[in-house]
Amino acid sequence: MTTPIGQTRWAIAEGYIPEGSNGPEPAMTSHETVCILNTGEADAHVTLTLFFADRAPVGPYRLTVPAQRTRHQRFNDLDDPEPVPRGTDYACLIEADQPVVVQHTRLDSRRAENALLTTVAYPGP
Amino acid sequence: MTTPIGQTRWAIAEGYIPEGSNGPEPAMTSHETVCILNTGEADAHVTLTLFFADRAPVGPYRLTVPAQRTRHQRFNDLDDPEPVPRGTDYACLIEADQPVVVQHTRLDSRRAENALLTTVAYPGP
Amino acid sequence: MTTPIGQTRWAIAEGYIPEGSNGPEPAMTSHETVCILNTGEADAHVTLTLFFADRAPVGPYRLTVPAQRTRHQRFNDLDDPEPVPRGTDYACLIEADQPVVVQHTRLDSRRAENALLTTVAYPGP
Amino acid sequence: MTTPIGQTRWAIAEGYIPEGSNGPEPAMTSHETVCILNTGEADAHVTLTLFFADRAPVGPYRLTVPAQRTRHQRFNDLDDPEPVPRGTDYACLIEADQPVVVQHTRLDSRRAENALLTTVAYPGP
Repeated sequence: MTTPIGQTRWAIAEGYIPEGSNGPEPAMTSHETVCILNTGEADAHVTLTLFFADRAPVGPYRLTVPAQRTRHQRFNDLDDPEPVPRGTDYACLIEADQPVVVQHTRLDSRRAENALLTTVAYPGP
Repeated sequence: MTTPIGQTRWAIAEGYIPEGSNGPEPAMTSHETVCILNTGEADAHVTLTLFFADRAPVGPYRLTVPAQRTRHQRFNDLDDPEPVPRGTDYACLIEADQPVVVQHTRLDSRRAENALLTTVAYPGP
Repeated sequence: MTTPIGQTRWAIAEGYIPEGSNGPEPAMTSHETVCILNTGEADAHVTLTLFFADRAPVGPYRLTVPAQRTRHQRFNDLDDPEPVPRGTDYACLIEADQPVVVQHTRLDSRRAENALLTTVAYPGP
Repeated sequence: MTTPIGQTRWAIAEGYIPEGSNGPEPAMTSHETVCILNTGEADAHVTLTLFFADRAPVGPYRLTVPAQRTRHQRFNDLDDPEPVPRGTDYACLIEADQPVVVQHTRLDSRRAENALLTTVAYPGP
C-alpha cells in the first residue's frame, strides 16, 4: 500500500454562500462545497472552524471521511453548532487526523445561468 | 536538456460530471478533463484511481503521455475498467512513472450558457 | 492554541477590474477581491503593493485583519494612496507581519450573466 | 529592497483557445492569457515553450517583463515562431532568468455570456 496523499491542515480564505438561486433544487441551488479526499486506509476525522469578519470563530463542525472515500460536503448543510449564514463573508480552517486533500467549489445560480469557481485549498503546516 | 518539471503523484478532490448538456457535441458537452503535461524525454505511464463517497475505489485507468507531449483526457471517455458515472461525486488520484504537471477543468453546459472551472491539481509526495 | 496557518508574503499575478456591470449594486458590481484569513491570536498588519504594465508600483495600501478574523477586501474600494484603475491590467504583492492565507476572486458582470473566478494566491518566501 | 517573490520555472497543463467569440473585440474575444509578475529590480527575460498532443514542442517564444512590472500576455497574440492554433489542446512551459509569479486565465465567449477560469500556474524546480 502506498502512502496516503495530502496534509492535515488546510485553509479556504474565500467563503460566501449567495442568497437566492435559480433552477431545480438541490442540484442548482447556490452552494459552497468543501471536497475532501482520503486515499489512506484509516478513517479521517475532520473538524471545520469558520472565521468571520466581525465575530468570533464558530466550530468545530465535525465530519468523517472514511478510508479510501471522498466526501463533498456543502457548507449549506452544516448546522451543528449552527448553520452557516447566507450572504456573509467567511473563511474556513480544515484540520484532520489523517492526510487528506481539500478542494473548494462554489455554484452561484443567482442569475438564470450558473457561475462556477474552484481552487485547491491552501495546505499548511 | 533541462530537468522535466512536475511531480509523480497528484490528487483532484473535486470531481463531478454533470448530467445533461446544451449545445453542439462534443465541444459543448458537459465534461471534466484531466490535463497532463510531460516535458521530459521519456514517455510517462499514468494510472488514475477514482474514489467515491460510498463504494470502493475503481481503477487503475491507464494512459500514456508521450515524451514532450500533453494529453487532455476527458473523464467522460474513460471506460476501462468501467465508465465514470454521471451526476456522482468522485475524486481522483493520478500516479505517473515520470514527473508530470496535472490540471483539472470542467465545462458545465447544463444551462444554455457555459460555466468553466479549473485548478492545478494537488501535488504530493 | 495551535500555530496560525499561512505565510507572510503572497502574490496575485492576474488583476483586472472590468469596466461596466449588470445588476443590483453592490452585490452584482464587477469586482475583484483579496480574501485574507488570519487564524492567529495577533492582529495582522497587511500592505498591498500594486504593479502595472507601464508605470511604477503604487502603494502601500494598508489594512488590518484582526486576530481570528477574515477580511474580504474589494480592490474597487481601495483609495489610499489612489483608486485602482478600471479596465487596466495589474498585479498585487501582499505582505503581512503575521501568517495569513490569501485567495483572489473576481465577479465579472459585464454581461447579463455573471462569471466568477478564484484561485489561492502564490505564497512565497 | 526585499527579495523578489516567485520562481523561475512554471507550467500550465491546460491550454485551449476557443474558436469563435461573441461581443466587442478585443475585450470580449475568447482568449487565454499568461499573467507574469516581476517584483524584482532586474528585467526578467522569459521564454514560453508550447506542447501539443501530437507534434513536437514549438518555441521559444520570447518576451520581457521589465523590473517591477506585470505583463498579461494573450496567447492569441503570439506569432513568433508561429501563431497558437485555435481549437487545439496545448500546454505551456514558462522559464525566466529572474523569479516571477505566473497565473493563467481564459475568457470563453463562444456563447452570448462569458465564462472565466483562472489558476496560479504550477511552480517547479
